[in-house]
Amino acid sequence: MLLRHGESVWNAQDLFAGWTDVPLSDRGRRQARSCGAQLAAVGLLPDIAHTSLLRRAIDTADLALDATDRHWIDVRRSWRLNERHYGALQGRSRQQIRDEFGDEQFHRWRRSWDVPPPAGDDATSLQGDGTARYRGLGVPVPAAESLKDVHARLLPYWEAAIVPDLLARRTVLVVAHGNTLRALIKLVEGLSESAVCGLDIPTGVPRHYRLDSDLRPLSPGGPSLPTRTSR
Amino acid sequence: MLLRHGESVWNAQDLFAGWTDVPLSDRGRRQARSCGAQLAAVGLLPDIAHTSLLRRAIDTADLALDATDRHWIDVRRSWRLNERHYGALQGRSRQQIRDEFGDEQFHRWRRSWDVPPPAGDDATSLQGDGTARYRGLGVPVPAAESLKDVHARLLPYWEAAIVPDLLARRTVLVVAHGNTLRALIKLVEGLSESAVCGLDIPTGVPRHYRLDSDLRPLSPGGPSLPTRTSR
Repeated sequence: MLLRHGESVWNAQDLFAGWTDVPLSDRGRRQARSCGAQLAAVGLLPDIAHTSLLRRAIDTADLALDATDRHWIDVRRSWRLNERHYGALQGRSRQQIRDEFGDEQFHRWRRSWDVPPPAGDDATSLQGDGTARYRGLGVPVPAAESLKDVHARLLPYWEAAIVPDLLARRTVLVVAHGNTLRALIKLVEGLSESAVCGLDIPTGVPRHYRLDSDLRPLSPGGPSLPTRTSR
Repeated sequence: MLLRHGESVWNAQDLFAGWTDVPLSDRGRRQARSCGAQLAAVGLLPDIAHTSLLRRAIDTADLALDATDRHWIDVRRSWRLNERHYGALQGRSRQQIRDEFGDEQFHRWRRSWDVPPPAGDDATSLQGDGTARYRGLGVPVPAAESLKDVHARLLPYWEAAIVPDLLARRTVLVVAHGNTLRALIKLVEGLSESAVCGLDIPTGVPRHYRLDSDLRPLSPGGPSLPTRTSR
């Protein structure tokens, strides 16, 4: 089960957040609780959850799990589930970026597979206690990422942390971000690079897959939350 | 760092909760946030947290960690950190129990080392999804526990999960319950059985130990939160 975090305060203001650790808006908190209630209603009860290191995903998971009465399950976190690092675009609005760089460049940064945005300075990259949070990763903190970069850094976590849970037939909830979920959906559905670049993922709406033993979706072509489940 | 959960709605009504999964009261939520703010103010920033499987400890940890900007650390959970199982006393008030069994028996259940309360029925033991939560423990779910029983089931978790974090010199936050914290304090401070039976642990107040390499407290006889720290 994949879930994009609920609306953040920067989503509400149309600002690029990336690795900036912005909280959920009140609407985002309601979305998260409502998602949990939907999962409980259809009997989709996670056995384990994975989140990024960003508050909007962590709080979404906590609120959704509380609403399903699954607050007590193990939760794992990784920077590899963080949103794409938007570099110098972080903290700026779509409109500002369009005005400064033009629609075509904006679209290229937003919708291409391998074009990273311009790198930000350290202050843009890591705020507050960022140095503690991202210390000891074993790899340099990115300064700006393309969707291809996100896919590449997500892959080791998918293989080492998520796949073993799936193979153990656990019901897995991943609460992450627009671009990490695109990369995950590419992995699960086997989408092409161009298809995944065009994918829009709404905040706070669970996306449910039932996978076969090779971890291919049992219902290809548009997973949706069932109205009931046999599990 | 040890922390008893904030006030629960049953604490506020003076009811025995035990393994009943009651939520925090509004006061309990404020206590948890305030505890996090205190920790942040003195620079005591947890690297890892451990909680029970009960909502009042889980939510206290989440709220306190959010207030220290440490929402992103790993959190481990175990039934071994759960409150003492109060058996047939769960859901009943102190006054009811005193009226029915007398002050002396009440005191014996509350303050002795090895006297368990009367066992409850299954409905008292495990509510709601309790069977899923406590499935696969490898040991039978207790029907009622003495403080000695709590100490015995806590010990394997202390040794296998908490001690390795301490030996790695991580700042460890354990958010648990009156009786599991008594048992932990007995382990850390080397208290006698009678001393630990007399120990009262307030809700929502952090108890901080600095430990030497043998995990003995550097400041024996009453740990308290420092006003500043060198770490």
